[in-house]
Amino acid sequence: MAGTNRKAAPVLGGPCVVLVRPQLGENIGAAARAMLNFGLTELRLVAPRDGWPSETARASASRADDVLDGATLYGTAAEAVADRHLVVATTARKRDIAKTVATPREAAEAMRDAMAEGRKVALLFGAERTGLENDEFALAHLAVRIPANPGFSSLNLAQAVLLLGYEWFQAAHGAPAGQVGPTDRSAPATMAELVNFYERLEAELDEAGFLWPEDKRPSMVQNIRALFQRAGLTEQEVRTLHGMVKALAHLRERRRRRA
Amino acid sequence: MAGTNRKAAPVLGGPCVVLVRPQLGENIGAAARAMLNFGLTELRLVAPRDGWPSETARASASRADDVLDGATLYGTAAEAVADRHLVVATTARKRDIAKTVATPREAAEAMRDAMAEGRKVALLFGAERTGLENDEFALAHLAVRIPANPGFSSLNLAQAVLLLGYEWFQAAHGAPAGQVGPTDRSAPATMAELVNFYERLEAELDEAGFLWPEDKRPSMVQNIRALFQRAGLTEQEVRTLHGMVKALAHLRERRRRRA
Repeated sequence: MAGTNRKAAPVLGGPCVVLVRPQLGENIGAAARAMLNFGLTELRLVAPRDGWPSETARASASRADDVLDGATLYGTAAEAVADRHLVVATTARKRDIAKTVATPREAAEAMRDAMAEGRKVALLFGAERTGLENDEFALAHLAVRIPANPGFSSLNLAQAVLLLGYEWFQAAHGAPAGQVGPTDRSAPATMAELVNFYERLEAELDEAGFLWPEDKRPSMVQNIRALFQRAGLTEQEVRTLHGMVKALAHLRERRRRRA
Repeated sequence: MAGTNRKAAPVLGGPCVVLVRPQLGENIGAAARAMLNFGLTELRLVAPRDGWPSETARASASRADDVLDGATLYGTAAEAVADRHLVVATTARKRDIAKTVATPREAAEAMRDAMAEGRKVALLFGAERTGLENDEFALAHLAVRIPANPGFSSLNLAQAVLLLGYEWFQAAHGAPAGQVGPTDRSAPATMAELVNFYERLEAELDEAGFLWPEDKRPSMVQNIRALFQRAGLTEQEVRTLHGMVKALAHLRERRRRRA
């Protein structure tokens, strides 16, 4: 899906992402791209299997090169999170270690609240096939499990990073309230403009004999108005509707003269 | 990240996913996998560039073969959504077509509520680089934009499917379904019923000389359709609109006899 690249200032910051013993450079690159999609820029790598730097990582990072260039290397997960105040670890399976298990959304809110208090946060992901070892998982203050189809719950490493990043972005920057209403530049119509259109439409429909019989007219008018009200019309659209009604009514006149 | 494969019964169902003119088999396969991760199983393909079936799709679908095997082919997006009552379209960019824009979370809730009322839902994704054409986007009742880093917002097709699937899963299987929509309305119109009305309206407007000049016609048609799509019309309302157009544009039998 093509992005906008609106040249707006990037939203940056957030927890560091720690990939523990990642196996494939391709996944590291895709994880870096997913991070940057949601404004995460600090990548820490613990003992990547195929060494570092990695050309395959770069090839799959799209334009998220800066994230890869800034990545730092550690020998163990414990070293990678040594300066952190809150460690959040993803896990795909149940573990014997007693730990609070949050949804990605809850974890994102916890990370945001911690950072708002000046605490440093790490988000920990295990190796592709095996996940985190128990001693690595034990480092976490909070565990996250992604809710998924129990019959098919296996997620790619970069996809797990993507989902946590997505929730982080919304928690940190506020899910923008969905724009309820038109997206184009035309202003929404005022009620006065709407009523003016409705009255014109109803006058034409009366003329055409549509709002009939008389005792049904009030409910017909209400239903027609309700239908247009739901659409959240713009000024421009009200002008278009005026034009449509006028064109159709003139067509009727033409046809009448021909008859 | 390794999955659990807990042998639990898979959670299936949900909206159908429509990929419009997907370019890479690899992305179709990854989208199928992402769908199944979140219990989505019905895949519809509109004119995949490299034909169908696709070995590269299968290679990247992991074990989501059943989703690919069940995929159905369509020539156009309009045909692919003809039996649907609610069409939700993803978009990465601002458009001139006025349309309600929701977050993935809001869209997932709208889809869940629609399905709880027995309505059929389609989730539409455009081609990798170009997205949906305007006439395809105009089919949608609701648009979704994924909130992301404005400086780096480009998401892979399968990642967009993943994020929408994730929100779908949480809306459908997470929090208890919220309030169900109004019950006093008649059944929602299918896309086929809506398109039938649009084509009839456009034929009358052509006859009336309203959709003119010719080079403006496509955008005028899109804007008119978008306006009615937003209203979420019922079958009864579509019948009313047919009657209104007929009344406005045609001489009534009674009058013709009088004339």
